[in-house]
Amino acid sequence: MSATLTRQGGHAAAANDAAARVMQRCALLAKITERPGEILRTFLSPAMDEVHRTMRPWVEAAGMAASVDRAGNLRGVWPAHPEKSQSRLLIGSHLDTVPNAGAYDGILGVLVGLALVEAVAAETLPYGIEVIGFSDEEGTRFSAPFLGSRAVVGELDGTLLDRTDPAGITVRAALEDYAARRPETVPAELAPYTAAYLEFHIEQGPVLENRNLALGVVEGLAGQTRSHIVFRGCAGHAGTTPMNMRRDALAAASEWMTRIEEIVSRFEDAVATVGQIEAEPGAVNVIPGMVRCSLDVRHGKDVVRNAALRAIFDEARAIGRRRGIELEIEQYHEHAAVHLDDNVVALSERAVAQAGYSTIRMTSGAGHDAMVIAPHVPTAMIFLRNPGGLSHHPDESVAEQDVAAALHAGFCFLDTFADWLDASGKKEGQ
Amino acid sequence: MSATLTRQGGHAAAANDAAARVMQRCALLAKITERPGEILRTFLSPAMDEVHRTMRPWVEAAGMAASVDRAGNLRGVWPAHPEKSQSRLLIGSHLDTVPNAGAYDGILGVLVGLALVEAVAAETLPYGIEVIGFSDEEGTRFSAPFLGSRAVVGELDGTLLDRTDPAGITVRAALEDYAARRPETVPAELAPYTAAYLEFHIEQGPVLENRNLALGVVEGLAGQTRSHIVFRGCAGHAGTTPMNMRRDALAAASEWMTRIEEIVSRFEDAVATVGQIEAEPGAVNVIPGMVRCSLDVRHGKDVVRNAALRAIFDEARAIGRRRGIELEIEQYHEHAAVHLDDNVVALSERAVAQAGYSTIRMTSGAGHDAMVIAPHVPTAMIFLRNPGGLSHHPDESVAEQDVAAALHAGFCFLDTFADWLDASGKKEGQ
Repeated sequence: MSATLTRQGGHAAAANDAAARVMQRCALLAKITERPGEILRTFLSPAMDEVHRTMRPWVEAAGMAASVDRAGNLRGVWPAHPEKSQSRLLIGSHLDTVPNAGAYDGILGVLVGLALVEAVAAETLPYGIEVIGFSDEEGTRFSAPFLGSRAVVGELDGTLLDRTDPAGITVRAALEDYAARRPETVPAELAPYTAAYLEFHIEQGPVLENRNLALGVVEGLAGQTRSHIVFRGCAGHAGTTPMNMRRDALAAASEWMTRIEEIVSRFEDAVATVGQIEAEPGAVNVIPGMVRCSLDVRHGKDVVRNAALRAIFDEARAIGRRRGIELEIEQYHEHAAVHLDDNVVALSERAVAQAGYSTIRMTSGAGHDAMVIAPHVPTAMIFLRNPGGLSHHPDESVAEQDVAAALHAGFCFLDTFADWLDASGKKEGQ
Repeated sequence: MSATLTRQGGHAAAANDAAARVMQRCALLAKITERPGEILRTFLSPAMDEVHRTMRPWVEAAGMAASVDRAGNLRGVWPAHPEKSQSRLLIGSHLDTVPNAGAYDGILGVLVGLALVEAVAAETLPYGIEVIGFSDEEGTRFSAPFLGSRAVVGELDGTLLDRTDPAGITVRAALEDYAARRPETVPAELAPYTAAYLEFHIEQGPVLENRNLALGVVEGLAGQTRSHIVFRGCAGHAGTTPMNMRRDALAAASEWMTRIEEIVSRFEDAVATVGQIEAEPGAVNVIPGMVRCSLDVRHGKDVVRNAALRAIFDEARAIGRRRGIELEIEQYHEHAAVHLDDNVVALSERAVAQAGYSTIRMTSGAGHDAMVIAPHVPTAMIFLRNPGGLSHHPDESVAEQDVAAALHAGFCFLDTFADWLDASGKKEGQ
């Protein structure tokens, strides 16, 4: 990398320029939607094709070979200059959205990757860079997330291919139709010698804003358990049933929900949420005989998550016994915590520090493509401060100066990545 | 009344015979419905006409002059024999039902009244008896209860007449149509010299069963306040928002609901129920930003109900302040407690004792026609034990022996009512 860029002043100025461009591009791409009046882009949709058509000239102008793979991922490859190594740094995030989305979730990370390559395009680096825009992270179309990154690591298979969208089309049929419409697509696979994956993403939470930090370094992604809990008591007349003769399912559920907060406070960094609740029969003048709740519990360490979960369920059972309420508990979804790569995380942390920013290590409570890539490629993530923690919402935002901070840290990461490649023995194909 | 009936053995035997007939009639009338497969009879419906056609011969066979009034109330008048007095005891309840009703709610009280007249038909009493089957207590058709009894006391007026049923027909139009179809109907009004009103009704609650009592004497009907409470916090990502940065509307509502039980326990006999709850946005992985609950609070004394309500709302506000949750409280319905007539209640209590049954005085937590009649005529109610407290349900039941107990108490009431008429100065028209 040139002396211009390695000087901090140069990096900072380049980052500021690039940040302005990234923000303009986010605003431009936010206009591409399959539902007028809101931002919505789903897996293999015409809106995603239009995003590819819009971005492709940018990718090529940065000196990259652009392609789209058979799972709809946009890919740009910038070779080592001169081709000193086949080792490649993968940078990216996703281009799809939830319904009524904001302009930054996912797409910001792809555009930051692109901007980093634009900044070094004239330089020589002893490794290549691939920028990737995944085709599905949100799972909006098929109610199954990560279809893009799963395809890249060879995990888009099995029952996943049989899932259907609201129109009854399977993932398999959608992929076949996509390949037929776009014969120029390349195989969806991880390039050999992909040495590391770096993902920039808005935090989608309030922690960095609360700590007054622009950037956070993600060292892991929380494991998660989703459950349904049913409290079965006895419906009764709200006027004629004395308080001490009730088996009120909602009173039991309320006591349990209140206790969850106390229980979770004993497990540092654990979060537990009851997001859905339904009481039956649901009349003003009838004591609820049945309450159904959802429960979402997350933690960066599976052993802690499971201990918290046990304590929460034990409490529900104790309350049920005391109140004559029957319980049904169903854990219907679980995924383990993902630990990111210690070395790439440390490299990211140093890069943020070199760019002059204080930072913290964080566990992401939300899922990201990095979860899917991490078992295959040493991975780290860098979070950008997210005002109000507001995401999946049209008012989702990020400050341009925080994007500049991310780009600056990215430049520093690129500066040191070659050394790490050498030191780690991951540099290949020289 | 004859010596035969005043002897306890005679009353008990007559009550047993009459109870069997009442049970058979309940079963027969339960077949009359406007919705096959369940019991449903609404205000001025063809099913109500059929109930009238079925009951009319019974009423007339008991020596009563039968009529239907312009509000659809079935009325049978048994004169004093010989006509010693124009004073009249009114006995009745309602003939309409909720959807998917049981066979006893309301109609049992009408049939008990009829059976009492049948038993004394050959006797001479120094007062007349009117048996009334009200046309609407449940409010099923117009979502407004007590249309039958309100008409009788001259309170079916004002905006009530403008209410519409699901077909868009107003109460006014329904009444006009009814009068046109049934020109033989008589004015809906309270007969002059109506000295007292007595209503038998299943308890619709578990208290008598719990106390192992066949009958209870109702001394009042609880006042009631219905409210909506909205908790407004801040929605957020269930994975990325640490517990201490949340403004979880459902956590706040849960704490409040749990506290309601403790608060209400400080106000003897008060009941408070949250029957409806709704959390938004209502996704497994989103912290609820808004919760809307219903609250139903009842007590036999208005001052106690209002104090309990204040304490419950104060607690909601305190929780809201502590958690950064905004509150909206709307009291959308309120009716005052109704105190029944001390003398007629005491007469009922003595009659139950004379029949050989232990009893308690109760406050009805549910509304009844007695509430509407009580401000105009000295009123009492007698509750029958209701297995499981189950009402407004096809499995609603009453034991035949408890119906016999009610009839036996009824006979004793009739025995002593003349003395009370004399003593109270209510005997008129001699």
